[in-house]
Amino acid sequence: MDIATIVGLILGMIMVVGSIIVGKGDLMAFVSPSSFILVIGGSFSSVLISFPMSEVKKIMSITLKVILNKQKDVLVIINQLVSLAESARRDGLLALEGRLEEIEEPFLALGIRMAVDGMSAEIVDAIMRTEMEAIEFRHEVGKQFYDAFGKYAPAYGMLGTVVGLVIMLAHMDPETIGPGMAMCLITTFYGAIAANVFCLPFVDKLVYYNSREILSMEIMVRGVIAIQAGENPRVVKQKLMTFIPPKLRPEEEEQA
Amino acid sequence: MDIATIVGLILGMIMVVGSIIVGKGDLMAFVSPSSFILVIGGSFSSVLISFPMSEVKKIMSITLKVILNKQKDVLVIINQLVSLAESARRDGLLALEGRLEEIEEPFLALGIRMAVDGMSAEIVDAIMRTEMEAIEFRHEVGKQFYDAFGKYAPAYGMLGTVVGLVIMLAHMDPETIGPGMAMCLITTFYGAIAANVFCLPFVDKLVYYNSREILSMEIMVRGVIAIQAGENPRVVKQKLMTFIPPKLRPEEEEQA
Amino acid sequence: MDIATIVGLILGMIMVVGSIIVGKGDLMAFVSPSSFILVIGGSFSSVLISFPMSEVKKIMSITLKVILNKQKDVLVIINQLVSLAESARRDGLLALEGRLEEIEEPFLALGIRMAVDGMSAEIVDAIMRTEMEAIEFRHEVGKQFYDAFGKYAPAYGMLGTVVGLVIMLAHMDPETIGPGMAMCLITTFYGAIAANVFCLPFVDKLVYYNSREILSMEIMVRGVIAIQAGENPRVVKQKLMTFIPPKLRPEEEEQA
Amino acid sequence: MDIATIVGLILGMIMVVGSIIVGKGDLMAFVSPSSFILVIGGSFSSVLISFPMSEVKKIMSITLKVILNKQKDVLVIINQLVSLAESARRDGLLALEGRLEEIEEPFLALGIRMAVDGMSAEIVDAIMRTEMEAIEFRHEVGKQFYDAFGKYAPAYGMLGTVVGLVIMLAHMDPETIGPGMAMCLITTFYGAIAANVFCLPFVDKLVYYNSREILSMEIMVRGVIAIQAGENPRVVKQKLMTFIPPKLRPEEEEQA
Amino acid sequence: MDIATIVGLILGMIMVVGSIIVGKGDLMAFVSPSSFILVIGGSFSSVLISFPMSEVKKIMSITLKVILNKQKDVLVIINQLVSLAESARRDGLLALEGRLEEIEEPFLALGIRMAVDGMSAEIVDAIMRTEMEAIEFRHEVGKQFYDAFGKYAPAYGMLGTVVGLVIMLAHMDPETIGPGMAMCLITTFYGAIAANVFCLPFVDKLVYYNSREILSMEIMVRGVIAIQAGENPRVVKQKLMTFIPPKLRPEEEEQA
Repeated sequence: MDIATIVGLILGMIMVVGSIIVGKGDLMAFVSPSSFILVIGGSFSSVLISFPMSEVKKIMSITLKVILNKQKDVLVIINQLVSLAESARRDGLLALEGRLEEIEEPFLALGIRMAVDGMSAEIVDAIMRTEMEAIEFRHEVGKQFYDAFGKYAPAYGMLGTVVGLVIMLAHMDPETIGPGMAMCLITTFYGAIAANVFCLPFVDKLVYYNSREILSMEIMVRGVIAIQAGENPRVVKQKLMTFIPPKLRPEEEEQA
Repeated sequence: MDIATIVGLILGMIMVVGSIIVGKGDLMAFVSPSSFILVIGGSFSSVLISFPMSEVKKIMSITLKVILNKQKDVLVIINQLVSLAESARRDGLLALEGRLEEIEEPFLALGIRMAVDGMSAEIVDAIMRTEMEAIEFRHEVGKQFYDAFGKYAPAYGMLGTVVGLVIMLAHMDPETIGPGMAMCLITTFYGAIAANVFCLPFVDKLVYYNSREILSMEIMVRGVIAIQAGENPRVVKQKLMTFIPPKLRPEEEEQA
Repeated sequence: MDIATIVGLILGMIMVVGSIIVGKGDLMAFVSPSSFILVIGGSFSSVLISFPMSEVKKIMSITLKVILNKQKDVLVIINQLVSLAESARRDGLLALEGRLEEIEEPFLALGIRMAVDGMSAEIVDAIMRTEMEAIEFRHEVGKQFYDAFGKYAPAYGMLGTVVGLVIMLAHMDPETIGPGMAMCLITTFYGAIAANVFCLPFVDKLVYYNSREILSMEIMVRGVIAIQAGENPRVVKQKLMTFIPPKLRPEEEEQA
Repeated sequence: MDIATIVGLILGMIMVVGSIIVGKGDLMAFVSPSSFILVIGGSFSSVLISFPMSEVKKIMSITLKVILNKQKDVLVIINQLVSLAESARRDGLLALEGRLEEIEEPFLALGIRMAVDGMSAEIVDAIMRTEMEAIEFRHEVGKQFYDAFGKYAPAYGMLGTVVGLVIMLAHMDPETIGPGMAMCLITTFYGAIAANVFCLPFVDKLVYYNSREILSMEIMVRGVIAIQAGENPRVVKQKLMTFIPPKLRPEEEEQA
Repeated sequence: MDIATIVGLILGMIMVVGSIIVGKGDLMAFVSPSSFILVIGGSFSSVLISFPMSEVKKIMSITLKVILNKQKDVLVIINQLVSLAESARRDGLLALEGRLEEIEEPFLALGIRMAVDGMSAEIVDAIMRTEMEAIEFRHEVGKQFYDAFGKYAPAYGMLGTVVGLVIMLAHMDPETIGPGMAMCLITTFYGAIAANVFCLPFVDKLVYYNSREILSMEIMVRGVIAIQAGENPRVVKQKLMTFIPPKLRPEEEEQA
């Protein structure tokens, strides 16, 4: 659960709604289902054209998975890798087969299973990195999705405003010109909110989570290769710990 | 057939037309052949200056080919390469000549024919990569075409609005100023639709298809080189499978 | 002669002028020498500050040369290189001296003369690549010139509109405010045309021609080095042909 | 203490406030707590969504540390490294343990301690560079924070203006339309100040300080590795001095 | 003295002032010291925050030096290097000490002095390249300064317009609204001139001069290293001449 996202979304909505109330505006004047449909539906249409259907279908699950899943603790991963290295060193690589079910991380389980199956280090490395790239590619598509949505939403907002202006100007009526203009601006309002409160911040967060995920997968790849090579668990630990800045390391490591 | 593109285009048009109808606007007020010609014709003129005629002529076919052609299944390509590797291993490279007609992919057929003709691996690799770059270059031109169109359409939309304003303001008449302004905005409306509903989403889709096409051609090049070197079909399969993320692989491969 | 450029420029002007006539506007209302001088003269001033005088002087000749010169046929260049390789192989490198005058391409003549003069392959390669970079740099300056012009023209158009507004608003007069505003917009109109009809499309075309020119020079460099090394003409041909996609190759090459 | 930042901030505020006073405006007309909350609170909401909470918490300390801390004098660092190299050469690496407390720079102390502990040069280098990347990453997050804030502030300013316009236009009243419009523009005013006076200049300064910090850490890494290898202090000095441009070097160095 | 810069600046001012006079505007209506102070002073404040004081102080001298200094003739530099190579070859490296005072270029003098002092080629190369990077860094700061100024000037121009509008709208008075609006636009006018006539073109010119300066320093580094290695002056010349495109070379070189 990402607290910052939840707090930010709620805070952002409070700010916008609050500014309307404080400005003595009528909240209902900002509700316009047709404007909402044009901006959100239109942006979604453009995004549909931009990506293949197979990718669009995954967006929701990628978004939820990346935002809701708790961040992996890199130290826990390193400790598990060191423990696996000890088993492998003591009882041989095949002994890891018995420990496969205790590995929660599917990516790590994949690597260990390949090592147990006796595939060459080169192939294990290539397959794990292909999987890494596939995961990175899925995140990249999620990022591009929100990037595109954040680009099209203000564009459709502007389009809606132009449509509204044309309709209003065609039957120009001094008495209704004020409310008419107000109505025109609602699509711009929706477009700006969709882009600045939702899409663009989502892009940044997806990029951040992706970089963390890639780091933890890099550690797993290095760990599996080291385990397969039968390296000393102490050396494995020292190697993997170089991925963690000194300040974040547990005390005993520095005394090692 | 790319369903997302078709659905997106239809949905996008429904959104725009629907918002006019819901807003009680007159659809005919948005029809202006002269505005259409200025925005689309003008943008096309600028694109003509931007590219050589030889490339412009290919745009339509590239667009149709890339958008309508069904996506290649990478697994099918790998299986065909493995099957070819088996033939070559059993009956010699020349045996592949008899299987040339069953290869649908012209790029793969080109590679196999060169291997059968006894050209050196180095030359086969260089020629296949040149062909890959030529195909990538054609896609790149397609992308640049829509990129440019999506840049010029709003610019000509703005230009048309300025032209309309100058005409309207020169003979200022309070009674017609509303409809006059409405007319001016139609070119902006057309420019925004051309860019956001058509051109910019097309650019993204072309980029996506290109990346898939390049991946499948990369697999073919690696496969042909491996076949020519007379590698074991099992090894060929393992090598090429590293291009596919584990989750997408057929079951038996993981047990191999 | 680049037909697309000519057609595009004429078509673009027809679109703009046509939209004024169709809109029942007075063409003369769009003619304003002082606006023209501010936008074009102002943009040119900024470009003058951006580049050294020595480069600005070359702009016109580079533009004309790159746009009017007919594109080099890469196949003709390869055939000439193969023919030179045959002479060199049969009669020695010095025999190429007698064929120097039949070489139209100054860049190729430079390379062959250096080879005949007995300079080392390393030096020939370095000098030809320096010349390549010098030519690429000249094209780059041409590209930057139009890039800058296309950036400053709308800026001066906007500046002219602000100047016009200030003048008009200072002596506000309800009767002339319409035509006054119209006059203000002419500089924006000129700026948009200068950028979108001329400068920005020119940038794209210069980039395209440059990439073609660089490719043909790359082939010449490789050819000269191969000739100097006394390589077999058949091998020279095969090597250089890898720069051409298979579909564009003459038939006999594939049977070779 | 960074004088330029303090002077710039004060000067910037004087310019803005002064222009209001000189323009005979009422300063109180520019004070609007609700607008302030919408622009700053809204931007902060979007930034919260963009980054994980753990990074947002560090922003204030990073900002203060990077802007207030006095710049490290690279010459002082080099002299300390040379002095440490002399001790190590004379009394052995272990002698550096006694000098650890005189090292103020925690990054340098970390490196020397690892060298004293007898870790291999490879590991020392890897750990110091991981720490460098961690520090660079923290600065990068600070930069991205202000980058994002400087992007969202004008967007929320625009959003507030749209909200204000909708409220004002819904109850159109000729007498209050002037002051109403004025109120609408306050959010744009706040957004522009937040971006141009605070956020965007902060980004540039953070980038500058980061580049200086990275340079001094690079020198420390090289110094520690050289000390560990037991290199001659004179050679250590000469090597590290190549990071300083000749003009900034003390005189005796050039005579060395 | 850079003629293009002087001519461009004068021409640009003539264009702007001329367009005001031709448009029958009152030049004094465009003079507003308070607007000038807001735009220029405000932009300068933001730039002060963006850079450390030590860099801001150097801006004026860097700007003057880069724009006023006459461009170095690369051929003259090469000839001097060849002449130094001849002395070194004939009378030994130490003989160059007597020729140090005839070297005008401080960067070249630095290199020759280090060679005479018997420093190793590796150190000479490293120190010269550090100095090159320091000079490039200074030019880069100059470029960033004008880049930032050209970004903030229009932003403060817009800010001033918003401030002016708020003041004007707060006390709405139909009679003064025209001149009031005109006054508001003056800051936009100043911002656009500061950016488009001064800052942005300066950025391009600084980039151009920097690339030339770097080229001539690269030649000096290569020359000094070759002289130190005691290479044949003819070879030194041939090597350095590869930096000059054939067309710009003196005749005798091609006959060499």
